[in-house]
Amino acid sequence: MSKTDTKIKILQKGSEIIHRRGFNNTGIKEILTSADVPKGSFYFYFKSKEDFGLELIDYFGRKLIDIVDEFLLNKDMSPIDRMRSLFSAFAEFNKEDDYGSGCPIGNLSQEMGNLNNAFREKLNNIFIKMENRFLDCLNEAQKEGQISSSLDAEIVSNFIVNSWEGSILRMKVAKDDKPHKSFMNLIFEEILTN
Amino acid sequence: MSKTDTKIKILQKGSEIIHRRGFNNTGIKEILTSADVPKGSFYFYFKSKEDFGLELIDYFGRKLIDIVDEFLLNKDMSPIDRMRSLFSAFAEFNKEDDYGSGCPIGNLSQEMGNLNNAFREKLNNIFIKMENRFLDCLNEAQKEGQISSSLDAEIVSNFIVNSWEGSILRMKVAKDDKPHKSFMNLIFEEILTN
Repeated sequence: MSKTDTKIKILQKGSEIIHRRGFNNTGIKEILTSADVPKGSFYFYFKSKEDFGLELIDYFGRKLIDIVDEFLLNKDMSPIDRMRSLFSAFAEFNKEDDYGSGCPIGNLSQEMGNLNNAFREKLNNIFIKMENRFLDCLNEAQKEGQISSSLDAEIVSNFIVNSWEGSILRMKVAKDDKPHKSFMNLIFEEILTN
Repeated sequence: MSKTDTKIKILQKGSEIIHRRGFNNTGIKEILTSADVPKGSFYFYFKSKEDFGLELIDYFGRKLIDIVDEFLLNKDMSPIDRMRSLFSAFAEFNKEDDYGSGCPIGNLSQEMGNLNNAFREKLNNIFIKMENRFLDCLNEAQKEGQISSSLDAEIVSNFIVNSWEGSILRMKVAKDDKPHKSFMNLIFEEILTN
């Protein structure tokens, strides 16, 4: 394997373990074993565990934004239906995983937001990116008269991202999809109406 | 100090550190040093770190429910104003803390929900307790005609708890109170209306 391939493999295996178990709770040794990379070679690819964590956030962020874009940029659907289908897909991933892992960006924000400023800024920037995708959809839906023009689309896009994160968090401990259903009902039937 | 006092002191100091830094990221030694309790005496009070964690969740839960009750059972205010004042108080705590620590029950749910089933159940039960307090307020507000009778109060109480947890989580990385403002705006001006 090339140097780049090995690095990607470490990030990929690391992302799987850390998504399930958390950053501080996962050792570098465990990741290297899982990636089948010789111990001791970690520092050939990353300066430190922190440096690895920062690259891991970029890795998670790219994957998440790719999924968001796949749904929210799909012009075959109305903007509100794109949003609905995205959250249904997210809920489906969660259910298949028995609600165990949650959102990697939410997890790391909860765990590391107060511990590492570089992590914190990177994580918030991913939330802002997500929010901006929702904002575009909401602006489009307002232009088309699909939702009320009196809603403040910026506030709504912020709330959608935050309340969804809270819903995934809750599903981790509730182990059922009631939080998803409550979210869909109140966001789409009470807030995003005409 | 009596045995009970020492145990309470360990829980109190432990709660402060774990609230800021997480459960797995905090060592027993650090808690005992901070509580000024001799190393090695931990197992006199707790069977294991897990046993300590379970008692800590009860400790956090009692403190949280006490605050919730202080506001939501205050019959001098309308049920909706009680809820508003609770979230303003929560937001004030968060701001004073520079949004760093977040909600202890949300933090532990995120960190431990997927790792320990006994933790998970206890944490979810605290969320359910909170939800039931909101449900009582919403039922009362519906009876008084303060909010629409067509709202499903059970779904709304579930969503309020979850979306608030997501808002505190987001404030940890955003470091401003926009998530609180979005929450107040959409919950109280869009959902809980007449």
